[in-house]
Amino acid sequence: MSKVYNFSAGPACMPEWVLKTAADEMLDARGSGMSVMEMSHRSKAFESILQETKDTIRRLASIPEDYEILFLQGGGNLQFSMVPMNFNKNGADIINTGQWTKKAIAEAKKLGRVHLAGDSSDKTFTYIPKITQEDLDPDTDYVYICENNTIYGTKYKNLPPHEGKRLIADLSSCIFTEPLDVTQYDMIFAGAQKNLGPAGVTLVIIKKDLLDEQRDDIPSAMLDYKTYVDHDSMYNTPPTYGIYMVGLVCKWLEEQIGGLENMEKINQEKAGLLYDYLDNSKMFSNPVAVEDRSLVNIPFVTGDPELDKEFIAKAKEAGFENLKGHRTVGGMRASIYNAMPVEGVKALVDFMKAFEEEHA
Amino acid sequence: MSKVYNFSAGPACMPEWVLKTAADEMLDARGSGMSVMEMSHRSKAFESILQETKDTIRRLASIPEDYEILFLQGGGNLQFSMVPMNFNKNGADIINTGQWTKKAIAEAKKLGRVHLAGDSSDKTFTYIPKITQEDLDPDTDYVYICENNTIYGTKYKNLPPHEGKRLIADLSSCIFTEPLDVTQYDMIFAGAQKNLGPAGVTLVIIKKDLLDEQRDDIPSAMLDYKTYVDHDSMYNTPPTYGIYMVGLVCKWLEEQIGGLENMEKINQEKAGLLYDYLDNSKMFSNPVAVEDRSLVNIPFVTGDPELDKEFIAKAKEAGFENLKGHRTVGGMRASIYNAMPVEGVKALVDFMKAFEEEHA
Repeated sequence: MSKVYNFSAGPACMPEWVLKTAADEMLDARGSGMSVMEMSHRSKAFESILQETKDTIRRLASIPEDYEILFLQGGGNLQFSMVPMNFNKNGADIINTGQWTKKAIAEAKKLGRVHLAGDSSDKTFTYIPKITQEDLDPDTDYVYICENNTIYGTKYKNLPPHEGKRLIADLSSCIFTEPLDVTQYDMIFAGAQKNLGPAGVTLVIIKKDLLDEQRDDIPSAMLDYKTYVDHDSMYNTPPTYGIYMVGLVCKWLEEQIGGLENMEKINQEKAGLLYDYLDNSKMFSNPVAVEDRSLVNIPFVTGDPELDKEFIAKAKEAGFENLKGHRTVGGMRASIYNAMPVEGVKALVDFMKAFEEEHA
Repeated sequence: MSKVYNFSAGPACMPEWVLKTAADEMLDARGSGMSVMEMSHRSKAFESILQETKDTIRRLASIPEDYEILFLQGGGNLQFSMVPMNFNKNGADIINTGQWTKKAIAEAKKLGRVHLAGDSSDKTFTYIPKITQEDLDPDTDYVYICENNTIYGTKYKNLPPHEGKRLIADLSSCIFTEPLDVTQYDMIFAGAQKNLGPAGVTLVIIKKDLLDEQRDDIPSAMLDYKTYVDHDSMYNTPPTYGIYMVGLVCKWLEEQIGGLENMEKINQEKAGLLYDYLDNSKMFSNPVAVEDRSLVNIPFVTGDPELDKEFIAKAKEAGFENLKGHRTVGGMRASIYNAMPVEGVKALVDFMKAFEEEHA
C-alpha cells in the first residue's frame, strides 16, 4: 500500500517516529531482552517507563506537584460514570455540547442530580454556549464540559465561569494540541487514542485536594480515583504497553516538536490551511460558529449528500482515509491531530480544490 | 542484551512469532498503509481484526453460539466488581483460594451478600477446598471461583458443585493452557496479560441466557455486560491494539501449536520437568498439595530465605528473569505460561541443579 493520510477522529494517525521506535523495540526494549509487553508491571524496567512517561507529561504542560497524573482504563466513557461516582454529592452542572456530553449527562443522571447549565442542541451543536455564573445551579459540586467536540468541530476558547465549584473537563480530543494550563481545572481526562497513543489508556490529571471531596459510596476500588493515586496507577496491572506508547508520543512532542507551543503553531498552520480554503470555497463549507472552531476536528459539507458521498469515495481512492463525518451529522470531517503532518493537510486541500474545479 | 527467559507471572513472555509479526506490521498492517493502532475502530480493517480474533477464539475452544465473546478493559480487578454488580441479586457463594478471591470477596461485599463456601487460608492457600453442594448457601445466585491461583500455584482439577446456581470463574492465569469446555461455566473472564496478549484487554465469555438475570441497578453502561453484547464490544473505543495482539496469540495457538490439546501436552511436559526435579531435590520443594498443583505457576522454596535471595540474584544474572515469589508468600515462583518454551524450563532446571550441587 502506498502512503495514506489518515483523517480518523480516533483511534487516529500516530507519529511515524513513534511507530518506528515501537517496531524497533518490539523484541528487545532498552536492552532488557524482552518486549515492553512482556515486562512485569512490578519490574524496575517498567517502573522506569511509567515514571518517565509521567515526568515527560509533567514537563510538557508544567503540571504543578499538587496535581496527580494517573493512567486508567475504560476511555472517556468510563469517566462519564467515574466523575459523578466520585464527586457528584449535591449535583453537577453540565454544559451540553454534543454526543459526548449527552452520554456524560445520561450516566451522571444515574448517579446524582444534574443541572443543564447550557445547551447548543438548538443549532446541532455548531457553537459553544456562552454561560455566566447565573446559569449555574448554586448547589452543584462541579461544572463539567467537553472542551473540544470531535463530531461537531467546536472548542471552548474560554472556560466557563465556575465560582465556588470545581471544573472538570473532557480533553480527549484537544489535549496537548496546544499549551495546557492545568491550574485552570480541578480535573481533566483524555482517552489516549486521539493525541496521546493507542486506545485503552485514559490519562487523568487531578488536583490532589479534589480527593478530599469524594463521595463515600463509591462502589468499587477500581472506580475510585484515590486507588490510582495511592498505588501510582498500579493497584492492578495497568495497560503497560499503552502507557509506554503514550510515553513515546510525549517524548516526540517534547524532543522532535519542541513542546506544546510549537505543536500549537503547527496545528494552527494546518487548521488555517483548511479553514481558509473552506471559507473561500464555493462548494465546501464549515458549519461551525467562527469563534468556536476546533483546531483539530474540521467538519465540512457540500450541501449535497450525493456529492459528499462521491467526494468521500474519490478521496479514499486517492489515499485520504476516514474523511466521512460522524454518522449522526453526515458530511465530511478531517481530524488533523498532532500526528497529522502539514503535508497531509496541504495534499487534502489540493485534492479538494481539484475536486471543486472538476465539478464547477 | 542476550536471550533472557522471563518467568513473570504477568504481564508475561509472549510467543516470538507474535512479537515479530507485530513488529513487521507496526507501520503497515495488512496492506492498509497504517498501523493497527491508527485504525478507526469503526473501519472495515479493524472490524475484520475483531471478527477474526473472535472467530479464532471460538474455534480454539469450540465455543457454542449460545456464548458471547466480549472484550473489556480494567482487568480481573474490574470483573471482581462487575460480576456482583450484574448478577448478585440474592447473594454469591465464593470459594476463597487466595489473593484474587480475597479481592473479589471484598468487592462483592460492597454490592451484595457473600457466603464463603470454602476457604484454604488455613494452610496459606496451598490446596483447593473440596466443597459439596451442602457447603453452598441455598439462596445465592452463583458460585464464584478463581480456577488457577497464580500466587500459590494451585488449580481446580474438578469444578465445584453448583446445582441450581450459575458458575462464574476467573481463568486469568489458565485460559487456553489446556482444552476449555466453556459449557461447564456460565461466565468466565481472563485478563489477557498471562496467556492471551498484552495487559489492558479482558476476555469475557458469557452464556447469553445469564443476561436475562441481570440486576436492574447497574450504575453505568460501561459496567453492564449487555452493553458489550449489544455493541459487539464496540460501545466505546475498545483497546484495539490489544485485541489485535490477542488475535495474533490465538492464531499462533491454532496454527503453530496446533490447538489447545497440543498446548496442554507441551505445558505438561514443561510442568513435569520442573515438578519432577522439585520432588527429587534435597534443596528445593513445592509446597502445594500434589493433586491441586497448577500447570503454569510453580512456586518453590529452599526453606532458607537467605538462600532463596541468593538463588534469585544468581538466576537473574544468568538470564532467568522474574523468579521472585509474590511479596505475600516469598520464595520463588516460575510462571511457565504457553509462551515459555520447553528449552526455558530445561535451562532453569539445569541451573537449579547446578545451584543445588554447588551448595551441597
